[in-house]
Amino acid sequence: MSGWITVAGLGPGDDALVTPQVMQALEQATDVIGYIPYVARVAPRAGLVLHPSDNRVELDRARLALKMAADGKRVVIVSSGDPGVFAMASALFEALEATPDLIDTDIRILPGITAMLAAAARAGAPLGHDFCAINLSDNLKPFKMVEQRLRHAARGDFAMAFYNPRSASRPHQFTRVLEILREECGPDRLIIFARAVSTPDEALTTVTLSEATPEMADMRTVVLVGNAATRRVGKWVYAPRRAV
Amino acid sequence: MSGWITVAGLGPGDDALVTPQVMQALEQATDVIGYIPYVARVAPRAGLVLHPSDNRVELDRARLALKMAADGKRVVIVSSGDPGVFAMASALFEALEATPDLIDTDIRILPGITAMLAAAARAGAPLGHDFCAINLSDNLKPFKMVEQRLRHAARGDFAMAFYNPRSASRPHQFTRVLEILREECGPDRLIIFARAVSTPDEALTTVTLSEATPEMADMRTVVLVGNAATRRVGKWVYAPRRAV
Repeated sequence: MSGWITVAGLGPGDDALVTPQVMQALEQATDVIGYIPYVARVAPRAGLVLHPSDNRVELDRARLALKMAADGKRVVIVSSGDPGVFAMASALFEALEATPDLIDTDIRILPGITAMLAAAARAGAPLGHDFCAINLSDNLKPFKMVEQRLRHAARGDFAMAFYNPRSASRPHQFTRVLEILREECGPDRLIIFARAVSTPDEALTTVTLSEATPEMADMRTVVLVGNAATRRVGKWVYAPRRAV
Repeated sequence: MSGWITVAGLGPGDDALVTPQVMQALEQATDVIGYIPYVARVAPRAGLVLHPSDNRVELDRARLALKMAADGKRVVIVSSGDPGVFAMASALFEALEATPDLIDTDIRILPGITAMLAAAARAGAPLGHDFCAINLSDNLKPFKMVEQRLRHAARGDFAMAFYNPRSASRPHQFTRVLEILREECGPDRLIIFARAVSTPDEALTTVTLSEATPEMADMRTVVLVGNAATRRVGKWVYAPRRAV
């Protein structure tokens, strides 16, 4: 039997947000690879081998998947959210590029509900106009690049979504992000901290930039920043379809 | 019985990309409102009234939904893709803002697989690094703003996704978009034209900016533009996780 790799997005947490396409891939798999908490979301069954691994070993996971597919396994790499947004799909193609003899591996990428869209839906429609998605982690890029992108996003009046806003190892950087945003967007711009959306730990907080503090974000938070026209209506936050 | 409104994303076309959460809302609905081709995707059943309407009447649809919910109906407004991305959610909140006596209407926004993520998954991982989503239509904003956002996105080295790139009424604008991209990103930058992804009409074309022509896009196309590091590996296109 010929092997394959499917990179599947499990969405933000609630199983009601997992697509039927992803469920079907999991039913056909012989092996599931991924970060520990994501693999824990897959129901065990006879004939399915689970391969949970720790954070920051994305390339190891990708290499394992390529090797197992070459051995005839049907491998699903699970990501939270969408696998193409700051997740496993890019890592798999990096590993593929480094192993030209496996270039014809049967690969499918299955989209998922990415965190910013689940968060936006809970808040209202803060991404209803042009927007940017930025990974604030500096693991794989210099923080200077983050800063430049923030300024371009603000000066283009994009709404913004931030992934990985803050970790224990770099708490000062998100402080700096808030400073830059206040400089560029002023104190009254709305910012939404959406933590663990669609899970039992879900919490949403909307404040102005002048009220925002770094402690409002952690690694389970997606942060959304409005554009110049973004406003509240009742308990909701939305970006009007018309530009200011 | 008290009424409610759910704004639901049907994804890009394939029913295997509709979330269980959206299917459940459709099962509970008394009324479904939306643009004709999206309402056509909902299976008719006894007790369900379908309200298809033409394009560009988003506010009329939103007002109808608010009125019907106030009358006790259980209303689903269907959007393709994700309802918060250039779709019906913002229009609903605009209508809500204009009718303060309905501010307590029971509203839920249910996310969906938006076109750019379905397209990216088919292409590989072109949105695997920071990216922008831009609606190229000038129905609701001046084209000058589109041009400014393109330049900021390019100078920030964001990957880009364009919705509504080209219509019969404004064919010249996408020509101008390609000119701006060539100025800002050079001739060798990769651009992907993803048409009708996940439907029988699906077609993907990847070329360099120097090879791109306006006719490669129509209103059923999502266009993805790589960042400076985006490259091909075999038949795939991806953005490496590391910045250049």
